[in-house]
Amino acid sequence: MRPIGIGLAGLGNVGSEVARLLCARREEFRRRTGAELRLAAVCERRRRAVLSLRLGKGVRRVSRWQDLLRVPEVEVVVELMGGEGAALALVLGALSSGRHVVTANKMLLSRHWDEVFKTARSKGRRVYFEASVAGGIPIIQAVREGLAANRIRSVLGIFNGTTNYVLSEMAHNGCPMPEALRRAQRLGLAERDPSLDMSGADTAHKVSVLASLLAGRWFPPERIPCEGIESVALEDIRFAISHLGRTARLVGKLAFDWDADPVRVEAHVRPTLVPLAHPLANVHGAYNAVLVDTSSAGDLMFYGQGAGPGPAASAVLGDLLQLGRELSSRSSAAARPTERCREEVPPPMPWGRPRAAPPSLPLRQAPESDAAHYVRLQLADKPGMLAQVAGALGRAGISISQIHQDKPKDPKRPVPVMIATHSAPAESLRRSLAAIAQLPGVRGRPVCLRML
Amino acid sequence: MRPIGIGLAGLGNVGSEVARLLCARREEFRRRTGAELRLAAVCERRRRAVLSLRLGKGVRRVSRWQDLLRVPEVEVVVELMGGEGAALALVLGALSSGRHVVTANKMLLSRHWDEVFKTARSKGRRVYFEASVAGGIPIIQAVREGLAANRIRSVLGIFNGTTNYVLSEMAHNGCPMPEALRRAQRLGLAERDPSLDMSGADTAHKVSVLASLLAGRWFPPERIPCEGIESVALEDIRFAISHLGRTARLVGKLAFDWDADPVRVEAHVRPTLVPLAHPLANVHGAYNAVLVDTSSAGDLMFYGQGAGPGPAASAVLGDLLQLGRELSSRSSAAARPTERCREEVPPPMPWGRPRAAPPSLPLRQAPESDAAHYVRLQLADKPGMLAQVAGALGRAGISISQIHQDKPKDPKRPVPVMIATHSAPAESLRRSLAAIAQLPGVRGRPVCLRML
Repeated sequence: MRPIGIGLAGLGNVGSEVARLLCARREEFRRRTGAELRLAAVCERRRRAVLSLRLGKGVRRVSRWQDLLRVPEVEVVVELMGGEGAALALVLGALSSGRHVVTANKMLLSRHWDEVFKTARSKGRRVYFEASVAGGIPIIQAVREGLAANRIRSVLGIFNGTTNYVLSEMAHNGCPMPEALRRAQRLGLAERDPSLDMSGADTAHKVSVLASLLAGRWFPPERIPCEGIESVALEDIRFAISHLGRTARLVGKLAFDWDADPVRVEAHVRPTLVPLAHPLANVHGAYNAVLVDTSSAGDLMFYGQGAGPGPAASAVLGDLLQLGRELSSRSSAAARPTERCREEVPPPMPWGRPRAAPPSLPLRQAPESDAAHYVRLQLADKPGMLAQVAGALGRAGISISQIHQDKPKDPKRPVPVMIATHSAPAESLRRSLAAIAQLPGVRGRPVCLRML
Repeated sequence: MRPIGIGLAGLGNVGSEVARLLCARREEFRRRTGAELRLAAVCERRRRAVLSLRLGKGVRRVSRWQDLLRVPEVEVVVELMGGEGAALALVLGALSSGRHVVTANKMLLSRHWDEVFKTARSKGRRVYFEASVAGGIPIIQAVREGLAANRIRSVLGIFNGTTNYVLSEMAHNGCPMPEALRRAQRLGLAERDPSLDMSGADTAHKVSVLASLLAGRWFPPERIPCEGIESVALEDIRFAISHLGRTARLVGKLAFDWDADPVRVEAHVRPTLVPLAHPLANVHGAYNAVLVDTSSAGDLMFYGQGAGPGPAASAVLGDLLQLGRELSSRSSAAARPTERCREEVPPPMPWGRPRAAPPSLPLRQAPESDAAHYVRLQLADKPGMLAQVAGALGRAGISISQIHQDKPKDPKRPVPVMIATHSAPAESLRRSLAAIAQLPGVRGRPVCLRML
């Protein structure tokens, strides 16, 4: 048994927890994997964060990521700095210098997938990223290994704890979104600038990582139509619960048609009204859940904490222990950091038949599938308004299954009108709503939520 | 890349599906793992089962398991025969002759854990058994690898699809147990002799496998107090739903106290009343679900199909693909079946500090934890009966939170009395009920269900 040297970059909440567990449970981990994970170096600018951890004398402290790569004992780099610039440079530098990488950085992976994995492959090194999707839920390993014999038909999930907490608070405690968001911030569940979560971008990054992994080809986040929850109001959730038997969730969806050539992928991130009896409706607070529909194992659900130091550290350490098992089962000579391993990074799941499509467009993107939708419009209280709206929807081929308008309290203020449509092409509905928004007497932007 | 020869014993529903997928998806699997899984031989007595599969010419057919071990190309034996006698001989024979083993056989593993893993270790061979617990849910891999950095505090699960189907049918369609069981048999969800499922023994085997894996020491099923669902009647479920807001599930539980020395394990299989809002209450039909409470990742739930050819084949093939990855990353010389690999079977999770306890009693068994219980008694309709029962419970220190007795329809027949207790030691309650069952005027065996 030889120790495997770990270089940890970023001592925020997650990084500190990883460092703490690496030191406190070293002996336990050794007995588990047959490999000794040794924290060789940490990289962090804030001196206080390093000091408060009371790391042993054997751990090198550096404050620049470049210096981490100069520590010869570092065989695996754990990137927990977040963001793109320095994190990307560190990851590529680590791989180029023959190190393996463990990262929780979904933004980096989803935006630079090809660069990262091409570098890894050319150097025969591995990149593990369990913590990048769904926190403590080992979903990457499940779809990559445990369910490897299956074709994954679809993935439907709640991937963002912040927005799920906000929507849960609105539904259960009847508090408006700004108040729910402030509560999330007080609990440390939301950043001071919550836009990455609220806009759905964080969910899109995670859907992109999953899509790229499952398809075996980069599926960048720009190709994922994405909408956040900013437009969802308390009145929408109240109406959905009382009239539609549904509640709002920010859902990331991925669906594959493996029989098409090239393989067709539908991906999107949408605020979605989920039936109250649906498993995703019962995912409350900062939890995540991932529903996977597979060819042999049927439908599965994975549920757990989507964020937080403990769950993220669990995922990072799970990756490190897997690397530990793999590295210590090789001869020690072959596994020295600067030499090349014989083993290649496993190709990330090239299912389906081989395709000759150009690398820029390897998968055909399927349009957003048809669905019933919930729409809320703010209409001026004047004659003919409803007729105009209904007419515009009708001309777009969208038929209405329910419509509700309460008696206006104040005739000068616009009246909210709630509409539930029958199943319709999402694209047509969106175009039609854009036209409706231009009608005189329609106030603000229409709210439009998919129904599951 | 070198082909990895597979010998498959048992062509029942699961075995046939494994054979079919191995042949149909061979190319796809090869691209996934970098290893070629080649079905080298099948072992099955029923000629028809073999013929109906239309295996290629390259697949050897044998009808005795001993002959499977004589096929030199077989490097991995997949045991899907079930039962103990021949299956155990095949597994031990395969390991002794230097083959790896994949099995779905929880009875075999739970009853012969030490023999199987000692043989595997002495020969440097691996035993994978994902399909033995919770069907298509990759729970073994999750607790063994993805969550490897955690101490698993407890596992609570529905591990048997047959009994869950029966209980769901009773609750939703109001049909009595014999009718629900007949429906399960018609759907192929229950065997003609359903006693292994109904008695809880199958669940105990699975809990034993999980306990042994997590504790790193054999925890045989005889040490798991076990009760099936045979005594649960429709009136119990109806009462639980209407008066207690609960429904019945057959729950396998495992709880560890890792700080105790020796480590304390609580394990049992009990028909349990679960609050209707609890995740396990929403597991319907033949589905399984496993709740895992961990030290870092928090609480997680895994949900999916617990049985059937597809899910079981998914788990078996997942194991084969993992073996394929491992074997093909070694030099081909080291991996020939009859030679010894350098690599040892990983010790199955020896958590906690090393213990010097005798091998026969490596873990201390904790008594069943306190819980509120539901009790149904059949009492003769005569004065003083209730007082006697309440007195007996009171003397055992068990206090009653609810008691219900409807007006008897026929004074000659015994009256059902439903009692909900406050939290009490399970052992005292059971002793007290045994005494109550002896009282004159008490008919039949009291029904006793744990409340979660």
